[in-house]
Amino acid sequence: EHFIIVGWNERTRKLIHLIDSQYQNQVEIVLIDETLQTDPVNDSNVHFIHGDPSVDQTWENANLKQAKKIIVTADQSKVEKEADIHTILVVITARGLNHRIPILVEILTENQKSNAKRAGATEVICTNESTSTLFYHELTGHEYVKAFDYVMSLLSQQQFIVHKVEEEWVDETVLQLTHQAKENGKLLIGYIRNEEVIINPPSDDKFQAEDRIIVTKELLQ
Amino acid sequence: EHFIIVGWNERTRKLIHLIDSQYQNQVEIVLIDETLQTDPVNDSNVHFIHGDPSVDQTWENANLKQAKKIIVTADQSKVEKEADIHTILVVITARGLNHRIPILVEILTENQKSNAKRAGATEVICTNESTSTLFYHELTGHEYVKAFDYVMSLLSQQQFIVHKVEEEWVDETVLQLTHQAKENGKLLIGYIRNEEVIINPPSDDKFQAEDRIIVTKELLQ
Ligand SMILES: [Ca+2]
Ligand SMILES: [Ca+2]
Repeated sequence: EHFIIVGWNERTRKLIHLIDSQYQNQVEIVLIDETLQTDPVNDSNVHFIHGDPSVDQTWENANLKQAKKIIVTADQSKVEKEADIHTILVVITARGLNHRIPILVEILTENQKSNAKRAGATEVICTNESTSTLFYHELTGHEYVKAFDYVMSLLSQQQFIVHKVEEEWVDETVLQLTHQAKENGKLLIGYIRNEEVIINPPSDDKFQAEDRIIVTKELLQ
Repeated sequence: EHFIIVGWNERTRKLIHLIDSQYQNQVEIVLIDETLQTDPVNDSNVHFIHGDPSVDQTWENANLKQAKKIIVTADQSKVEKEADIHTILVVITARGLNHRIPILVEILTENQKSNAKRAGATEVICTNESTSTLFYHELTGHEYVKAFDYVMSLLSQQQFIVHKVEEEWVDETVLQLTHQAKENGKLLIGYIRNEEVIINPPSDDKFQAEDRIIVTKELLQ
């Protein structure tokens, strides 16, 4: 079982570093890049494949059948729409060869998100969207509020967990469950109801049986 | 009073859209870009300046003296390090002309963050860092956990507020204040102690007089 990462860039460099530091090199990574000629990572558990990820043979070399997840990153050296078109082509290739594997995809332009889904992406991450929203907080918030730092701290210290609502939690309030979660080291940040994510719901909201509760807890180092 | 945004790209397009929708066009924006010839935004409160942001005259045209904040975005069409070098030059120019204005800067490579600070940036946002950390959560988390969605929901529904610790809160526990905050519609996500951001601290941690408390509350639409 291994992760396949498509595209070498500053983001994948950091991502590989994060995986290595959290898993102490116990996770195998296959890195596919068509521009680089040689392995950019001096790391025994990262296997570099120089090849075009829109070609079947590249995925066979990456042992796609045994892989656990794929992440396809955007080629930011290309014009944004061209980068997305290439990404979508890569998704079509991988999805055609493995129908079940989760494929996470980075898309740069909002209006290509749905095409990435159609091509077979399990999850589409529009990084320009998160970045611009962070910029918005920084620009409009008080000067001493460092939204970027808080989000980075959240992401680097905590993991997200999604719970089903236990039978005894139905009709309990957000306030009650927030308290109970906190006693158990968990930060209740919201819930998912009818596919909608609601963050910091009113304290007197009552949980329903079909809700899913979003909490964070310490990321084990 | 106006915001100055440097660089036209998908992120600034979204940022301007966010500002417009939240402030109903009551906020003036000056957009500086040296590659575009004509105003890319058909919007009466966005003033486009075609010019080189490393040249004093461009900033005078942008009325830097009266501006409220500056955001300098990275030119992702450039190689990452070159983009950062250009960004740093722009910061030096703006800081030289206005010593007090907050300058938010997007940097792509981690090791140019300190140079951006030296050049006069108030806050440096390394977007590759947040993106790779989000990728990490998506890649290693459970398949049904959509970290990106939760962070996006948090950022689009909530605003961050940083409180001083009131006298009567000293020696109260995280559990007590979490409860109290929640009763007032606020989600206590952590605190800042000795410049360190601690998210989801243990429930029996006690607040100290110098701590600052980080909460989120509903972003007014
Ligand atoms: Ca700030
Ligand atoms: Ca996921």
